[in-house]
Parts: sequence; C-alpha cells; structure tokens
Amino acid sequence: MSEAAIRALIAERVDAIRCKDVARALATLADDVVAFELAPPLRLPPEAARDQAGLRAWFDTWEGPIEIDHRDLVVECGGDIALAHSLNRMRGTKAGGAPVDFWMRSTLGFRKVDGAWKISHGHTSVPFAMDGSYRALLDLEP
Amino acid sequence: MSEAAIRALIAERVDAIRCKDVARALATLADDVVAFELAPPLRLPPEAARDQAGLRAWFDTWEGPIEIDHRDLVVECGGDIALAHSLNRMRGTKAGGAPVDFWMRSTLGFRKVDGAWKISHGHTSVPFAMDGSYRALLDLEP
Repeated sequence: MSEAAIRALIAERVDAIRCKDVARALATLADDVVAFELAPPLRLPPEAARDQAGLRAWFDTWEGPIEIDHRDLVVECGGDIALAHSLNRMRGTKAGGAPVDFWMRSTLGFRKVDGAWKISHGHTSVPFAMDGSYRALLDLEP
Repeated sequence: MSEAAIRALIAERVDAIRCKDVARALATLADDVVAFELAPPLRLPPEAARDQAGLRAWFDTWEGPIEIDHRDLVVECGGDIALAHSLNRMRGTKAGGAPVDFWMRSTLGFRKVDGAWKISHGHTSVPFAMDGSYRALLDLEP
C-alpha cells in the first residue's frame, strides 16, 4: 500500500513538472523539505526549496513541456518513512530553442504527514569527470 | 534508539574511511546497496559498490588519512527504514601530494537487517555551474 502511494506521488510530481504547474509541484513537498539540486547552492533549505517564484522562473526557462522518465526505480518503505532512488532522463527545449536531453541520478525521501505522503528530501545530480577537467557528465547513459 | 544507531553507523563508516579499512567500510553496507558516487558511472550496482579491490584501489590514491566532517545532518527513522542527509567536507592529500578539501552533499538510506542497521543506498554529489561551463563546483562552502 505504501509503495503504491509513493509511486503515485512520484508520478504526480513528474506530471506537475511536465505541465509546469507550480502549485501541484509544491504540493508534493513537506513543509521542512531540504533539497540538493543540480545547480548551486550546495543545499536548499525549506524556504528556498518551496519558493513559488523561483520554481515559476525555472519553469519559464523552458519552452513547452519538461519530460522526465525514470528507470531502475527502487522504493523502500518502513512505517512513516520511505526512500526511493532512480535514474531520470530529463528532456525538453530551453527558451531560445536549445534542446536538453540527459540522464541524472535522483534520490527522494518521504514522510507520511497527517496520512498523506510528502517529499521530505530530494537529491539530484550527475557525476563529474575525474580526468582533471572536473566537467559535469551530462552525456552518460544507463 | 534508531536515530542513535544510525548516527553510530555513520560515525563507524567515517572512521573506517579515515583509516582506509576496506573490511570495516564494506561491513556498513547492505548486500543490495546501490550507490550514486561523485565519479562515473551514473549508478553502481551492489557488486560494484561492494567491490573490495575497487575500494582498496581508491584508498591507495590517498596519502595518509581521508578526513570527512559533516554538518546539517538530518536523520529520519521509520520502522526498519531510515534516511540521513548532510553536507560533508572531505579533506586529505592525494598520492603525489595534491591537497584535497571540498564540500559535497551526502544522502544515505538505511535498512535494519537481522537487527542491525546497514546502508542500502548512498548518493554523493556536488552541483555544477549553470554558466555554460558545466564545471563541477568543488569550491562551494555551506
């Protein structure tokens, strides 16, 4: 039951991002969510992770939908805490026309709050090259 | 009780890495651990995440101890599942003499197996620059 609810919450978040719906995307987050994103800073505290204007501004950097597909999804539930990790492919077109298509790693933490699961932690990243260039590796495939 | 056990397991792993003790470091991991590391590939399946020779080879790229300090540690426990995230500072000297000192993000998932907590998932990363350089940001501070 819990795993099905977690998978539904992930699907809801993916669909909210596809539709660039700020309210629906933020409704998946717990009040005290802490996020580690692809972009700096190192850590987004709750007030930044839940910032409506910031999310709207990010959505506006895209033309059309933002597509996220995932594979290798693992969900583990225990009582009122759950964890999920997957490889996510993000695709779309940036405002101005540049295509985006890359794979990232996603880890999500969940907590049941008043009977409803919410995302309490999110961590997305790509690895970087160890050849001295320190280049973020946006061309890796699973 | 669970949170104290999780904090002790994190401390054990940090100490095992400081001492470059392969057996102790691997003993903190669940059999089916999946790791998302700083270096490629995107995803380490259990046989790679638990590879003794690989960990020994990585330890051997360092001269002296590998120091990890953390801050902003959050631990959440529910039944037999737990989640922790923190900002970690890694410091040391690479073989050849190059100093290393940078902050990363760490997310860990835990599962209680036969009464003992083990790490079932690890995700470490740094963000990358959104200025077109795609440079991994190893100079950020909390």
